Amino acid sequence: MSNADHPHQRRLADGRMQIDFQTEPARYRHWQLHIDGEVATLVMDVDEKAALFEGYDLKLNSYDLGVDIELADVIERLRFEHPQTRVVVLRSAKPRVFSAGANIRMLAGASHAHKVNFCKFTNETRNGIEDLSENSGLATICAINGTAAGGGYELALATDHIMLVDDGSAAVSLPELPLLGVLPGTGGLTRVSDKRKVRRDHADVFCTTEEGVKGKRAVEWRLVDDVVPGSKFDAAIAARAKEFAAKSRRTGAGPGIKLAALTRTFAPDGVEYGAVSVAFQRRERIATITLRGPAVPPPASADAMVALGAEFWPLKLARELDDAILHIRLNELDVAAIVFKSSGDPAQVLAYDQFLDANKDHWLAREIRLLWKRVLKRIDLTSRSLVTLIEPGSCFAGTLAELPFASDRSYMLAPSLPSPASGGGLGRGRDGDNKPPASIALADANFGAYPMSHGLTRLQCRFLANPADLDAAKAERGKMLDAETAQRLGLVTFALDDIDWDEEVRVFFEERASFSPDSLTGLEANLRFAGPETMESKIFARLTAWQNWIFQRSNAIGEEGALKRYGTGQKPVFDTRRV
Amino acid sequence: MSNADHPHQRRLADGRMQIDFQTEPARYRHWQLHIDGEVATLVMDVDEKAALFEGYDLKLNSYDLGVDIELADVIERLRFEHPQTRVVVLRSAKPRVFSAGANIRMLAGASHAHKVNFCKFTNETRNGIEDLSENSGLATICAINGTAAGGGYELALATDHIMLVDDGSAAVSLPELPLLGVLPGTGGLTRVSDKRKVRRDHADVFCTTEEGVKGKRAVEWRLVDDVVPGSKFDAAIAARAKEFAAKSRRTGAGPGIKLAALTRTFAPDGVEYGAVSVAFQRRERIATITLRGPAVPPPASADAMVALGAEFWPLKLARELDDAILHIRLNELDVAAIVFKSSGDPAQVLAYDQFLDANKDHWLAREIRLLWKRVLKRIDLTSRSLVTLIEPGSCFAGTLAELPFASDRSYMLAPSLPSPASGGGLGRGRDGDNKPPASIALADANFGAYPMSHGLTRLQCRFLANPADLDAAKAERGKMLDAETAQRLGLVTFALDDIDWDEEVRVFFEERASFSPDSLTGLEANLRFAGPETMESKIFARLTAWQNWIFQRSNAIGEEGALKRYGTGQKPVFDTRRV
Repeated sequence: MSNADHPHQRRLADGRMQIDFQTEPARYRHWQLHIDGEVATLVMDVDEKAALFEGYDLKLNSYDLGVDIELADVIERLRFEHPQTRVVVLRSAKPRVFSAGANIRMLAGASHAHKVNFCKFTNETRNGIEDLSENSGLATICAINGTAAGGGYELALATDHIMLVDDGSAAVSLPELPLLGVLPGTGGLTRVSDKRKVRRDHADVFCTTEEGVKGKRAVEWRLVDDVVPGSKFDAAIAARAKEFAAKSRRTGAGPGIKLAALTRTFAPDGVEYGAVSVAFQRRERIATITLRGPAVPPPASADAMVALGAEFWPLKLARELDDAILHIRLNELDVAAIVFKSSGDPAQVLAYDQFLDANKDHWLAREIRLLWKRVLKRIDLTSRSLVTLIEPGSCFAGTLAELPFASDRSYMLAPSLPSPASGGGLGRGRDGDNKPPASIALADANFGAYPMSHGLTRLQCRFLANPADLDAAKAERGKMLDAETAQRLGLVTFALDDIDWDEEVRVFFEERASFSPDSLTGLEANLRFAGPETMESKIFARLTAWQNWIFQRSNAIGEEGALKRYGTGQKPVFDTRRV
Repeated sequence: MSNADHPHQRRLADGRMQIDFQTEPARYRHWQLHIDGEVATLVMDVDEKAALFEGYDLKLNSYDLGVDIELADVIERLRFEHPQTRVVVLRSAKPRVFSAGANIRMLAGASHAHKVNFCKFTNETRNGIEDLSENSGLATICAINGTAAGGGYELALATDHIMLVDDGSAAVSLPELPLLGVLPGTGGLTRVSDKRKVRRDHADVFCTTEEGVKGKRAVEWRLVDDVVPGSKFDAAIAARAKEFAAKSRRTGAGPGIKLAALTRTFAPDGVEYGAVSVAFQRRERIATITLRGPAVPPPASADAMVALGAEFWPLKLARELDDAILHIRLNELDVAAIVFKSSGDPAQVLAYDQFLDANKDHWLAREIRLLWKRVLKRIDLTSRSLVTLIEPGSCFAGTLAELPFASDRSYMLAPSLPSPASGGGLGRGRDGDNKPPASIALADANFGAYPMSHGLTRLQCRFLANPADLDAAKAERGKMLDAETAQRLGLVTFALDDIDWDEEVRVFFEERASFSPDSLTGLEANLRFAGPETMESKIFARLTAWQNWIFQRSNAIGEEGALKRYGTGQKPVFDTRRV
């Protein structure tokens, strides 16, 4: 495969053919995690020779997607494997350098799609760090021992508390604009303005000053929380860690569970996991993700859940689904639509939701809910058309019912004969099929556990016009709702009988594949997020959309553009007309 | 000038050299306004031969910027010239067609900058229509007699109430995605999701269906409010108009004032208005806008204000400033930074603010405040670096103090000698200058009259970190604040003495002109809007940023792209990789 044909525009290092989002501590090249009782220390020590792609070195703790995949992994392990930790301190192993941010040569040579997906993933990881503090109570401290530039400072911004050494040269900076003609791509502007609430004129000066801000001014302008002389830095970090650990609300006593490696088999036309299958119809540009319901009832107790560990069905399913989505995003760029299907007993799915509700104060149940929240948010932000097909034998109930609600539209198969008057017998779905008729079921989880990035649940967002519709749906919790009822309640887009089903669904997919992929990306990014915005959703809307625009402009990516000319000694040449 | 060199990529029609935002009813080519007591009827009747640029005809009530400039003008005249109207009905003079939306051949041939600025202006006009209803009480009804496609339906969406004739073919549609591979560019998606609260899956179907939705489904899906048989359409419109007029809160009794033509003189290096001067330093890529304070005290009464009409200083200044901003936006694309300066007596400016406050229930005083609100919002959304230089003899007080707060940064000249102990004497500004030392003054108007598009005042946004800073500033209302005090209160970015002034300001401008214009556009669009988002700000952030991205993609604008191939009979060819 030539570089030009490669989906990422360049070759992966070490002969790899696709980006893998699974890793484990024994394989880390860039991070070290040290646990000392309640205090975890996460050390960034990027191996400059271990880049994801060919063609650049990761000097000065600069990073690429490979470094961030490890970071995302270690954050998950802090949640699940180390529930006793109450504070994590982020540090650098490099002298006088915290991090130089995203690697510029990587960016300059990356395809547009890779740049966009790279930024999206790094944003999700940093939002996950904030969720770790806000919802799991694990406080986060960033100790900056030197320069924290661009993405390096953006990583710091994702923590609760930023400490900067005061040695006359250590500084925080967002030099993307003056140096590269692009924006800080990982939430930097939004966190400066909305999280740290830096005054806008100070922010303007900061973001246009290549060398950044240091010392007292960095505190006065709210860019960092403490500046500490070098001789006292370690002691100050230890004191802050102790202070934050004491304030932490984290309650995860006892040992964690092991996040064992996922069982995966890649084939040319799909990926097979334990509870998830992915099938590619490449000619139609469709990826079908089938989720399998639980094979056994929920365990008898929280201890039994802990004993099951990563094999506990809701956890297993969430991890597999997350990996499948990331695989499609980064390695299967030609997929136009992701189709969600499911198979299993919806009553069993509801039983697991009830189990998680009943154990909601248990650290592991809470972490599993939070993981599902993040996976569902990742789906909301996936720039492919999302469709759920609700067919006989499916189990879109409770947590799994979030998938049709996360979808751009859903089709539900209605029995072709009138339903039996009593609910007792099996209905008929499609001809020759004796699976139970398609149903959908709601649970408490659909009414609060899984807010989208803009703060509303998917059903709140769906029923923005009329909160009474939300109440009507809520009243039906726990019931198996047939297609007619689901449509009446507004839970599905179309209920079709099997006379219309094949044709309607086929036409929909053909049509979707015929549209401009870019306009679909823009359409979906708008229609999926009716209602308010939060800092998190502003990062993906206002900031990311502008950044993607800049990433398409010749002032950045043209032969004379800033990103291409960086490091060549030649100045960029700009089209000076303002847009 | 060749087409390629022209800032808009094509020639203006009729040999014009620049786009003019000033017009008047006698010159309208596309709209007719009929007033019948409380009811105004605004008829869209686009003259297809009167396009703004060469190369296309405006068929089927399609529009270009020229049509929208007339619409913006007539909306202003409804406010100021017809205060007795309580409802306006928007109709089409074309049989079976309401409007085909933005002209596609115009879009396909327009420069990127023109497309972006065109969409921005049309968005501002539609936001102004909503403001007309919300804050001036003039109810708006759109009567759709046939097809309302794309921008045609988006115009309808800006009104309070949409009536669609039910004749088996009349329909509303947003066919941009299936037909052109772009997004509806004038708020359509956001108004569908956030104003009309159309369910997201219905919105997905609607926006991907070229022919749109008609009849009963259009009401069920909340796309329109009424569908009415053709035979009853006129009667139904009249009844609705009467009903809305009766409910209107508009209180503008008596005759309006005449919005006389602005006095303007264009010279090669500037534009001279009555109270505003614009000076271009083209080599430095700077436009300096100097605002002149009032020459006389405010009038003695509201009647005297009405008698002054368009010559009343705050109204005159707002209209001139608005025109200057639009002129720079559309005709002076190479300007990197807009510098605001002022000259006059700040006490007099405060006196006018007090006069407007004292008459806040008078329709004209209210309309002037609302005009200033819109002009200031237009400045917030202008993609040029904004700087205010506060020098001796300037009058950045009250309403005019919003300009430094709207700016990306501000510089204030501090006296080079310590201020006199008493406030009595004249201080000294720069050497040889005996103007009063620079001061800034706040008024009630800075604390509520002029919210930005995201709902916060500029000072609320500025002091997001600490509301106590807002209170501290509020306590200083009415006082002349020197540079030291202004800086202590956080009202200006830098207070400099005249030893540093020239060098600091010069370096700033040089630096600004050296940066990538695109990255500045993105930076400023992010840093200016800390805090919440509203439907209006979402239109400019989420929607517009994505649209601008799509407008740069070859899937839209490439030789095989959808926008270029529209109408050629050839299908577009897409890069199918999803980003």
